[in-house]
Amino acid sequence: MPTTVSTQIKKITTDSVTEARDLLAAEEPLEIRVEYGPKKSRITKSVSVTMRTPGNDFELAAGFLFTEGIIKLFGEIVSIKSVGKGNENIVCVSLHEKVDLNIAKLERNFYTTSSCGVCGKASIEAVRTACNIPESFDKLRISAGLLYGLPGLLRTQQAVFENTGGLHACGLFDMDGNLKIMREDVGRHNALDKLVGAALEMGLLPLENYILLLSGRASFELVQKAVMAGIKIVAAVGAPSSLAAEVAEEWGMTLIGFLRGERFNIYSGAERVLI
Amino acid sequence: MPTTVSTQIKKITTDSVTEARDLLAAEEPLEIRVEYGPKKSRITKSVSVTMRTPGNDFELAAGFLFTEGIIKLFGEIVSIKSVGKGNENIVCVSLHEKVDLNIAKLERNFYTTSSCGVCGKASIEAVRTACNIPESFDKLRISAGLLYGLPGLLRTQQAVFENTGGLHACGLFDMDGNLKIMREDVGRHNALDKLVGAALEMGLLPLENYILLLSGRASFELVQKAVMAGIKIVAAVGAPSSLAAEVAEEWGMTLIGFLRGERFNIYSGAERVLI
Repeated sequence: MPTTVSTQIKKITTDSVTEARDLLAAEEPLEIRVEYGPKKSRITKSVSVTMRTPGNDFELAAGFLFTEGIIKLFGEIVSIKSVGKGNENIVCVSLHEKVDLNIAKLERNFYTTSSCGVCGKASIEAVRTACNIPESFDKLRISAGLLYGLPGLLRTQQAVFENTGGLHACGLFDMDGNLKIMREDVGRHNALDKLVGAALEMGLLPLENYILLLSGRASFELVQKAVMAGIKIVAAVGAPSSLAAEVAEEWGMTLIGFLRGERFNIYSGAERVLI
Repeated sequence: MPTTVSTQIKKITTDSVTEARDLLAAEEPLEIRVEYGPKKSRITKSVSVTMRTPGNDFELAAGFLFTEGIIKLFGEIVSIKSVGKGNENIVCVSLHEKVDLNIAKLERNFYTTSSCGVCGKASIEAVRTACNIPESFDKLRISAGLLYGLPGLLRTQQAVFENTGGLHACGLFDMDGNLKIMREDVGRHNALDKLVGAALEMGLLPLENYILLLSGRASFELVQKAVMAGIKIVAAVGAPSSLAAEVAEEWGMTLIGFLRGERFNIYSGAERVLI
C-alpha cells in the first residue's frame, strides 16, 4: 500500500486561487493479532488496532509487542504474516509454542496497574514491572555539538514528511551521530514501534549505545517505549510532558527537549552531556 | 490537579549553560467509567484510560462518550463524579436508567466494524453507523479573510501552551469568527473531547453553525469526532491525513489544512469558502 495519497486541492492566498495536486500522508487502520499456545491448540487473539501509515507493518507489529512487554526476544516470533483478504491491514504474529504469554499484559496497558490504581506514579511503576532490561551503569557521553546536528540529519531522510508535512518521525543515531534507522508515521507511537521493531530484527537490542531523536514532543508513551528498548539518551525537537520527564528521571535516562538550532534543554541525566 | 508542573532544567546554548525553572504540561492517566442499567442492578464498567492534562475532566468524559457514539444527549447523564481515592484520575459517568447502552459499542472503536473488516472504507462506514446527526443542507459561507485570523485568536487564549510549548489546542468559533470555546491537552483527541463535552453541557449541539480550528494536524480520529458533533467546517494549522480528507469528503465537510499566515489549502467542501 502507498505511504502517500494524491488528491486534488485548492490553494488559497490573498491574491490567488490555484487548483493543484497535493500529497497526503496515508492513514489506514492496522490490526495486530497474536497466535500462541501449544501446537495442537493454537489460539489467535487481536491485541491492537491502530491508525498507521502503511509500510514497515511487520516491524510495527514486532516493535509493538516488544515495547508493550508482550515479547522479550525477536526469537520468540516464528513468523509474521498479512492475513487481510485483498488488503494488508491485518497482521498476525505467530509466537513460538514455548512462549509463556501473559494474557493479562495483552489486556492491560501502561496507564494502569491492577495493584496501584490510576496515577502517574502507578504508570511509572508499571514500566518498572514490564521492563526486561536490567538497569546498568554506563559511561555514555555525548557532546552538545553532536546533538545540534541531529534534527538536520533526520530531516534529510524524511522523504514522506517533505512531501506531505504530515508525519511524525523518529531516528536512531549511534554515538558518533550516524543515523542508523529512521521511521515515519501519522502516529508518533507507531513511528517508534516501527523503529524498535527494525532494531529488534537487526539484533541491536538493548539499544544502550544509541541516541533516539523524536521529531515532535516527548510524551509518557514514547519515553516508556524508549525505556523498554534500553535507550539511555532521548532528544526531542518539541517539549516533554511532566510524566515523560518523571519516567526519564526515574530511569536515569538523559532527556533533552526543544532541540532546535544550536540550543536545547536538559530535563534529566545531564551528566551524559559534555558542554 | 495542576495543568503545569515546574521542574529544574539546564538550558544549553553554544556559549552558555543556565540552570532554570521550566514549566511542563502535566500528563496523568484518566480512567473513564460508566454506570448504567436499571435501578436495582446498576453496572459499572471501565470504558477508557487515556493520558490527559488534568482539568475539565468531566467535560472530557462527557465529550468522549458523545463522540464515541455511546450517548446521544447530555440529558442521558445523571451525574459525573470523581471516584479516585485521594486523586482525581478516575471519573464515573452515571447514565439514566432508561439509556439503552450498546455494550458492543463500548468495546469496539471507530477503526473497525464487525461487518466490514479493517480498512479505511470500513472506518468511514463505522462513522456513518454511529453518527446520530442527520445530514442536512446548509448555506454556510465563510470568507478567506475570516479564516486567516483564527489561528492568532486561538493562540492568544492558549495560556498553557504559552508556558510549556507542550499542548495541543482546539477552538470553536462562531460564523463571525468569535472564539466560543478553547480547550488544550497533551493528547489532541482529549482536547477535542473536552471541547465537545463543554459544548454538550452548554446545549450547543449539533455544532452546525460553528468552525472548528485544530492547532496541529487533522487525523481520521479528529475529523470523525467533528462529524459526530455535527461540525461542517474544520480548519487545521497542520496537514490532514488521507483518511481525514476522505471522511470529510464523504460527509460534505469543508476541510482546510495548512492555515498559516494568509494562505491555506482546501481539501473538500470548497463551496463554503468565499474568496
